[in-house]
Amino acid sequence: MSPEAAARERPRLTATPDNAGVDAAVAAARRVVAALLHTGGNSAAEMQDVAARLDAVADHLEQHAPPMADRMVDMWAGEGVTRHDPVTGPENAIAPPLALAGRDDGAIEGTTVLGLPYQGPPGFVHGGVSALLLDHTLGVANHWAGPSGMTAELTLRYHRTTPLFQPLTVTARQVSVDGRKIRTEGTITAGGEICVSAAGLFIAKQVPRPQ
Amino acid sequence: MSPEAAARERPRLTATPDNAGVDAAVAAARRVVAALLHTGGNSAAEMQDVAARLDAVADHLEQHAPPMADRMVDMWAGEGVTRHDPVTGPENAIAPPLALAGRDDGAIEGTTVLGLPYQGPPGFVHGGVSALLLDHTLGVANHWAGPSGMTAELTLRYHRTTPLFQPLTVTARQVSVDGRKIRTEGTITAGGEICVSAAGLFIAKQVPRPQ
Repeated sequence: MSPEAAARERPRLTATPDNAGVDAAVAAARRVVAALLHTGGNSAAEMQDVAARLDAVADHLEQHAPPMADRMVDMWAGEGVTRHDPVTGPENAIAPPLALAGRDDGAIEGTTVLGLPYQGPPGFVHGGVSALLLDHTLGVANHWAGPSGMTAELTLRYHRTTPLFQPLTVTARQVSVDGRKIRTEGTITAGGEICVSAAGLFIAKQVPRPQ
Repeated sequence: MSPEAAARERPRLTATPDNAGVDAAVAAARRVVAALLHTGGNSAAEMQDVAARLDAVADHLEQHAPPMADRMVDMWAGEGVTRHDPVTGPENAIAPPLALAGRDDGAIEGTTVLGLPYQGPPGFVHGGVSALLLDHTLGVANHWAGPSGMTAELTLRYHRTTPLFQPLTVTARQVSVDGRKIRTEGTITAGGEICVSAAGLFIAKQVPRPQ
């Protein structure tokens, strides 16, 4: 089987964006966020007009938003993958989004390319963004392996700068489970080289879902 | 002096948003990102139309964007605070944004309220978002104290869940400098209680700015 065919057959562990409804609007919002950074203060783009157009969209959406308590219940209904988190969520414009899939060896893996919104040092990914991606991916690796929980401790080691605008592979695997203590590790690699590694201690407990 | 007056007199260490130009458009984009999550799949909001309006804004901005290499030089020109980073940047819709100020005791501090885009467990801040805020704040604390550099190692401890929709105080201070090794600590507190603490090792080196 080709690597591409193998990847297609891996169980997808994160929500699949659909091209209709809110996911399409969120994908467009991601373009806006990146383009605002790319355009910068270019006055030819008439930013006051852009602001007015975006405010009009926000006004429209807010007028159709349910009470927050209702939305929280709806958002957390069902037992499937989340659609709103800031790493993999197709409904969250902050998320790249990273798509994660299970591998036969028990680890999970996803590939993404990060642009200007995720920049730290010039031309490189922000160290805190790498921490965000790894914390989330370690959590999904726990779900994939079995027992999962909440982060108690997370240690990140930065081996080399992580490039913007190039494919990054994010992987994680559950290493051990000892009572309620779960240990999980992961990396971000670029071109086969480890940029950031993470080791996390998770405690098997969950915040109750709103009802 | 009142606490409010003291806060006003603290040196501001992050960019001040202005109400014109790109900052206003980015503030509106933040509203859109949050409102998309709040509205969710509500069909009454006619998401295909929202997507079309946002894509039109992105098209317009992309048409006025300079070549990326030119934008990178412009973005990193000058020696002042950055305007584009994903934590404090008024030009980055991913940033809450967090405003940080220096305190007389050598630490730095800022307060923010995080909404739906930053959610991890139901009703609480994503652990990776806390890591992002703390990594960046530790870096700014180093700039404020003197020698600064890039994150080599970062350890986060999660003491309790960090609430959404409530004021969070983010603080950091440089603890020691030993040759090129810089040690820095910080916390996120809510209602005076520590939610997350961080300890970082930074190495005094910088990626060259694009020219």
